[in-house]
Amino acid sequence: MFKKPGKKLLPIAMVSALAVGTLVSGTPSIDAKVSPNQGKIKNVIFMIGDGMGPAYNTAYRSLKDDPSTPYMENTAFDEYLVGMQETYPWDEEENITDSAAAATSMAAGIKTYNGAISVDVNKNEVETVLEQAKEDGKATGLVATSQVNHATPASFGAHDESRHNYNEIADDYIDEKVNGEPKIDVILGGGTSYFERTNRDLTEEFQKEGFSYVTTKEELMNNANEQVLGLFAPVGLDKAIDRPEEQPTLAQMTDAALDRLSKDKDGFFLMVEGSQIDWAGHDNDIVSAMSEMEDFEQSFKKAIDFAKEDGQTLVITTADHSTGGFAMGINGEYKWDPAPLKAAKRTPDFMASEIAGGAAAEEVLEQYIDLELTDEEIQSVADAAETNDVTTIDNAIEKIFDIRSGTGWTTGGHDGVDVNVYAYGPQADKFVGLHDNHEVGQMVKDVLNNKRNKK
Amino acid sequence: MFKKPGKKLLPIAMVSALAVGTLVSGTPSIDAKVSPNQGKIKNVIFMIGDGMGPAYNTAYRSLKDDPSTPYMENTAFDEYLVGMQETYPWDEEENITDSAAAATSMAAGIKTYNGAISVDVNKNEVETVLEQAKEDGKATGLVATSQVNHATPASFGAHDESRHNYNEIADDYIDEKVNGEPKIDVILGGGTSYFERTNRDLTEEFQKEGFSYVTTKEELMNNANEQVLGLFAPVGLDKAIDRPEEQPTLAQMTDAALDRLSKDKDGFFLMVEGSQIDWAGHDNDIVSAMSEMEDFEQSFKKAIDFAKEDGQTLVITTADHSTGGFAMGINGEYKWDPAPLKAAKRTPDFMASEIAGGAAAEEVLEQYIDLELTDEEIQSVADAAETNDVTTIDNAIEKIFDIRSGTGWTTGGHDGVDVNVYAYGPQADKFVGLHDNHEVGQMVKDVLNNKRNKK
Repeated sequence: MFKKPGKKLLPIAMVSALAVGTLVSGTPSIDAKVSPNQGKIKNVIFMIGDGMGPAYNTAYRSLKDDPSTPYMENTAFDEYLVGMQETYPWDEEENITDSAAAATSMAAGIKTYNGAISVDVNKNEVETVLEQAKEDGKATGLVATSQVNHATPASFGAHDESRHNYNEIADDYIDEKVNGEPKIDVILGGGTSYFERTNRDLTEEFQKEGFSYVTTKEELMNNANEQVLGLFAPVGLDKAIDRPEEQPTLAQMTDAALDRLSKDKDGFFLMVEGSQIDWAGHDNDIVSAMSEMEDFEQSFKKAIDFAKEDGQTLVITTADHSTGGFAMGINGEYKWDPAPLKAAKRTPDFMASEIAGGAAAEEVLEQYIDLELTDEEIQSVADAAETNDVTTIDNAIEKIFDIRSGTGWTTGGHDGVDVNVYAYGPQADKFVGLHDNHEVGQMVKDVLNNKRNKK
Repeated sequence: MFKKPGKKLLPIAMVSALAVGTLVSGTPSIDAKVSPNQGKIKNVIFMIGDGMGPAYNTAYRSLKDDPSTPYMENTAFDEYLVGMQETYPWDEEENITDSAAAATSMAAGIKTYNGAISVDVNKNEVETVLEQAKEDGKATGLVATSQVNHATPASFGAHDESRHNYNEIADDYIDEKVNGEPKIDVILGGGTSYFERTNRDLTEEFQKEGFSYVTTKEELMNNANEQVLGLFAPVGLDKAIDRPEEQPTLAQMTDAALDRLSKDKDGFFLMVEGSQIDWAGHDNDIVSAMSEMEDFEQSFKKAIDFAKEDGQTLVITTADHSTGGFAMGINGEYKWDPAPLKAAKRTPDFMASEIAGGAAAEEVLEQYIDLELTDEEIQSVADAAETNDVTTIDNAIEKIFDIRSGTGWTTGGHDGVDVNVYAYGPQADKFVGLHDNHEVGQMVKDVLNNKRNKK
C-alpha cells in the first residue's frame, strides 16, 4: 500500500549508492526548463484547475503512484512546477477569493472584488488577455467542464459586475466584437440553458456569424469548422467518471480547440479550465476531486504535447484558489490511502441520486464501489436513505471514502492557501518564484503581446 | 480588515495604469535570483520550519500584512520561493512522514522509515551533510527551539534506529567523533534533562573537550568561545510569546551560531530549526503557530543578512512536512482574519495552565487577550475550567481563536501536502521546481562538497 523498499525493489547496493553517492536521482533537469529563454511566444495555453490547491496536487500524485516502484512517480504537472501564486481579492467583506475575482486577476492582470467578471473595483471593464490576443489578430478559445459562461471562462471572455448574470455573460460572448468580429473562435463546455433561451437564441446568432454549433462529442469530432460553439450539457458537464458517451472529455475538447486555433498564422490564446475540481471540493467529495484532477491532467498532457511540438507556445497552468480546506490526514493518523478512491466507479453524487430515486443502498454501493464495504458502512448509507434527501445520502457515501482514505476538510467554501504555478515553453522562467495572481495575469498579457510590444 | 483599494490608497489613475499598462508590479526580479550561478559555496545554512506547510506561509503573510496598503506585503521568505518538495517516507505502515524520516532525507539524502535518525531502511548509518562538512574541515552547528536532540536536529548530528532514544542521541553528539574531534561545534536549544543525567553528565564532557556550557541568554551573549553547548530549558524552550527573559530567541541563537561558525576559514554547515511551529500544529493552536512562524522568520532574516554580506553562503529553507491539516477557511465563509491572533499576548497553553492552576478564567483571558470577548466565549472557558483538565481548557481557548479567525484543522498529526522550498545564494537555481526531500538533501551535500568534488 505504501512506498517501501521491498527487497525486490531496492537492493542493498542501491541503498548504499544513494547513501554515499553524489547522484541526484529522479527529477529531470529543471534548470534547463526554466533557464532564461527570451524566445518569441506565438501562442499561450492558460490552464486553470479550479480549486486545485497544493494538497490536490500532492494527493493526485499519491493516487497515480505505482506502488511497485520505490520512488513516487511524477504527475504530468510535477515536472513543470515553477512556483506559487497568491490569490486574495480586493474586497470589502471577504479576503479569500472566489473564482471570479481570481480569474479576473489572471485574465486582466488586475485585482478586483469577489464576483467581478473582468471589471475593476470601480466596475470599469478591463481588457482581458483573450481580447488582447484577438485585437492582435490571433485566434482565441475557451474550454471548460462547467457551463462556458461560469466565472472562470467568463472572466476571459466577458465583462460583468456580477458572475451571477449568466445570460448577460453569454450575451457578451457574441455581442462584444473586436474589430467587428466575434472575439472567441472556439467555445466548448456546458451551458445550453443559457445560450438557447426563449427570448434569445445565441446558438443561432453564432451560426449566423459562421460558427458551427455542436452538442455531442460525435458532432464535435465530425466538425471541421475553425469557429465552433460546442455546448454538451444544460449547465455543467457531468463529472468525469459519470460522463455519458455523448459528452467529450476535457482532453478531447482541448484537442478540438488546438486543432482549430493552431491554424491561425498569427497564433492563438486558449484558456482551458478543469472546472469541477472546485465543485468536488465544495462538496467535500474526494472521489470526484481526484477523478476531475485526472480529467484535467489528461488535458494538460495534450497542451504540453502541442507546445513541445510547436516550440512557440507557452503553457501556464495554475489554480484560482484552493477549495474545501482539503488535507491528507485525519485523526492523528499518518496515512492517506488512495486505494478506496480508485475503487469508485461513479461519484458519490451519482450513487446518491440513484438511491434517492428508489434504488436499494446496498445494491448501488455494491454496483459502483469495488470494495468490500462493512455492514456498518452500508447501514450508514441505508440510514441516510431513509431521509430521502440526496445531500444526506451523498454525505454518508462521502464519509466512507473520507474515513477509508484519511481525507479531511475544513469548509464547504474556498480556503486561502497559495496555489502552485506550472509553466512550460518560451519565457517560462519568468514565472519562477512567488507572484500575486494579478502579476501572473499581467505577465501572460505581456509575453503574448509581441505585436504591440514591437510598435 | 481586508485588502481593498480605499480612495486614499489606490487612485483611479493607478487602477487604470494597472488595467492597460504592461508593467508587472511587486515582486522583484526572481529571474536574477535563481539564474544559473555556479559560484562556489563555502557555507550552507539549512533552515527547517518544522510542520510549516504551505498554508502556514500564506497565513503568516496575511498576519504580517499592512492593511493600509493595497497589495499584501511579502514575508521575509516569499522573495526566495523556488519550488516545493515531496515528503512521503519509506515505511511499511505509514505514508505521511514524521519529522525523523523527513529530516533524515534532508540531512543524509536518502529515504527512510518514520522514526529513523539518519539510518536507512536497513538501520545502517548514513553520513549526514553535517558530518560531511566536518570531515571537510568545516565548522558545524545545530540550533533548535525544541530539545537539541529532538528528531530534526538529531537527524543531522546523530544516528539511531529510533527518535525516541533521546539519551543515546545526545550521547552521539559527543561520542561520535570526526577525525578525533567533536563533530558539532555549536549546539543551541533546549534539553538539559537529557544532557545533565545522573548516570552521565554530557555537559561536563563537552567542557572537557573545550566547549563552553551556557544555560541563559546572558551567558550566551557574554561568551566568546567558538565551541559552545547552550541548553536553555529542560526539554523544549518555551513558545516564543511565552518565553522568559533568560531564554534566547531563535534569531539570537542563530546570530550566536553564525558569529562563531563564520570564524572557520574552511566554512561551515549550520542547521536551524523553528521546531515548535509543528508543536503548535499538533495542538491545533493557531496563535502559537503564527508566533512560532515569526520567531522562525526573524531567524531567517539573520541567515539571509549573513549570506548577502558573505556571498559564498547558500541558505536553503523548507519544512519537513505540514502539520494539523491547517487551512484558512471554515464554515463556507470566505474570510481568514488574523486580527484576533495578534491580540493574544500569551499562548492558549500558557493561559490554560494559569487557569488550571486556580486563576479565574475571566481574569486570565482579560489579562492575556486584547479583545472584548463575548460572555459566551468567556463562559466556554469557565465551563472547561470546571474539569480542571488543562487540555480541555486549552482546547476551549483555542476554539475562540479558531472561530474568530476562520481557522480549520483536520488532524492532530501531520498532513501529506508538499511543502515550500526557499533558496538564496550560489547555486540556488538548482532548487527550482519540485524535488523529493531526499533529492534536496543530496543536492545540499553535493553543493557543499567542494573539497571532495575537486579530488
